[in-house]
Amino acid sequence: MRILTEKGPKEYRAVWMEGDRIIMIDQRLIPQQFRLVEFSLVEDVAKAIKNMTVRGAPAIGVAAAYGMASAALNGQDLAASASLLKAQRPTAFDLFYAVDHMLERLSKGDEPVKAANDYADSIIRRCKQIGEQGEKLISDGAKVMTHCNAGALATVDYGTALAPIRMAWKAGRRFFVYVSETRPRLQGMKLTAYELRNEGIPHSIIVDGASGHFMRQGVDLVIVGADRIAANGDFANKVGTFEKAVLAKEFDIPFYVAAPISTFDFGLKSGMEIVIEDRDEDEITFIEGKRLAPEGSGALNPSFDMTPSKYVRGFITEGGILSPREIGKIKGARI
Amino acid sequence: MRILTEKGPKEYRAVWMEGDRIIMIDQRLIPQQFRLVEFSLVEDVAKAIKNMTVRGAPAIGVAAAYGMASAALNGQDLAASASLLKAQRPTAFDLFYAVDHMLERLSKGDEPVKAANDYADSIIRRCKQIGEQGEKLISDGAKVMTHCNAGALATVDYGTALAPIRMAWKAGRRFFVYVSETRPRLQGMKLTAYELRNEGIPHSIIVDGASGHFMRQGVDLVIVGADRIAANGDFANKVGTFEKAVLAKEFDIPFYVAAPISTFDFGLKSGMEIVIEDRDEDEITFIEGKRLAPEGSGALNPSFDMTPSKYVRGFITEGGILSPREIGKIKGARI
Repeated sequence: MRILTEKGPKEYRAVWMEGDRIIMIDQRLIPQQFRLVEFSLVEDVAKAIKNMTVRGAPAIGVAAAYGMASAALNGQDLAASASLLKAQRPTAFDLFYAVDHMLERLSKGDEPVKAANDYADSIIRRCKQIGEQGEKLISDGAKVMTHCNAGALATVDYGTALAPIRMAWKAGRRFFVYVSETRPRLQGMKLTAYELRNEGIPHSIIVDGASGHFMRQGVDLVIVGADRIAANGDFANKVGTFEKAVLAKEFDIPFYVAAPISTFDFGLKSGMEIVIEDRDEDEITFIEGKRLAPEGSGALNPSFDMTPSKYVRGFITEGGILSPREIGKIKGARI
Repeated sequence: MRILTEKGPKEYRAVWMEGDRIIMIDQRLIPQQFRLVEFSLVEDVAKAIKNMTVRGAPAIGVAAAYGMASAALNGQDLAASASLLKAQRPTAFDLFYAVDHMLERLSKGDEPVKAANDYADSIIRRCKQIGEQGEKLISDGAKVMTHCNAGALATVDYGTALAPIRMAWKAGRRFFVYVSETRPRLQGMKLTAYELRNEGIPHSIIVDGASGHFMRQGVDLVIVGADRIAANGDFANKVGTFEKAVLAKEFDIPFYVAAPISTFDFGLKSGMEIVIEDRDEDEITFIEGKRLAPEGSGALNPSFDMTPSKYVRGFITEGGILSPREIGKIKGARI
């Protein structure tokens, strides 16, 4: 992805590996600071997943793959490392998919860093394909709405929801993006706006509750990412996604979910089986270190919500745009 | 309303008048600070309305009534003072209603402070009646959802949406309130949670985007206030209200709007005629004085949204709970 640094635009990935060091952008500091952090222990990668230094389902998967590579390089117990990584966050399927993929590769005796790099490269290639598949949905003059950050930061490069937006822009189409800020952690305002600003794509931040207001004024399509997609097409994504899906249906606006194979959990029959992570109430009651809620008032903080497949017009995947009934077609895809 | 001060609970109104001084709670500082401010010039009251020292449609109306009383006491031009006050915020009908009411009273030669006090007392009485009318909607064990602050702070005392909640609690029923935080200014987290905490009513703050998630888990009714209600029952309220109304319909959860006569604008045929205030983008891009959005990314900040009457189960008014088709019944009510 292109990042505007003090010396001009520079290309970055969200996570990568050099020698035995895993390097990642500290996503908690963007856009105020652009800082790279590095780790060489799987335990530190686990912490970085937990505390959201790295976030976004595909990027979490890649970080975990590198964590497994580190564990192998350090001669650590692979089953224990896999369990440790999987215990950090419950909802994003990519975390489980990537760790299991690495266990399989490592059990075959593959070189650890090569195996993890292969996984990362495959995710990046798939995100690029998602962009190529989805870009035709965005017409000249369109108004597009997205939620949270399903961009390059969330996926190592290109993005899922943002990949079609990037590709349509590169193809010369001109359009406008509504970025819902995505409380409590504001990944829309902080990360998606940052990526769009870096690419020069016109956009405005809106509060999450204003989606309906702007849909009434005219939105042509909504594209979001996903953290886990069940076999029937129900999916979990950042809290607030379900509301947009219901509103889009109310206004008959096409609602798309962009995700690679690593986010599809065909082992779950429906979205009711997806575990929704509850995070600390302080993410809501404190903003930038300051308590804004009254003392004595608590908060409930589900990090994701579940959207039934009936609200989804299509899944933009590396294998094409599929209706909820068609998603079984990519079941056989292998990273 | 009951406020927990350092020395224990104390009774307050949001706005009142002593001699020639208008005293109000600075609502921008709650819950971190409880501070009273006072004015004796209509120009200062106008500023306090604009900068949201006082907010909430009925409370804005009462503040404006006192502003008109000040103008009269100071021998100022009443038509000019009325225009000044009305120019501060476009959406809440109470502002226009209260100023016109005062012009009428003053043109009859009524004593200014008495006329404004009468208006304030009438609003308080009506809010109490809204509570009495609406409290029966809240059963023991219910889960209630509200948005923004339609409490005592917004209405001088009792509240509109919060009045039935207060009254049901006093009647001994025990229930739980979901308080959506209400970005960008967080009146839910800062003001509604504060009022409920002061009353000892169990509640949790949620982000605006989590309403759908919790409605699926089970919400028994949604109650909100209003800033302006058109003759057909379409209404404007804090941005995010429309989304809750659509979601409530999706889950078949009764959705109620609580408001006194001063919020009904029978001069408007439908909600499409309601002017929606756009406020400064800094309310979104800065939080507590710190810029959180990337430099170069802007925001769109509609302060209200419009909800069509088809989503409303009933209007809780001082004259009873009315369906959208029945609201003409209170057209003749006079303050």
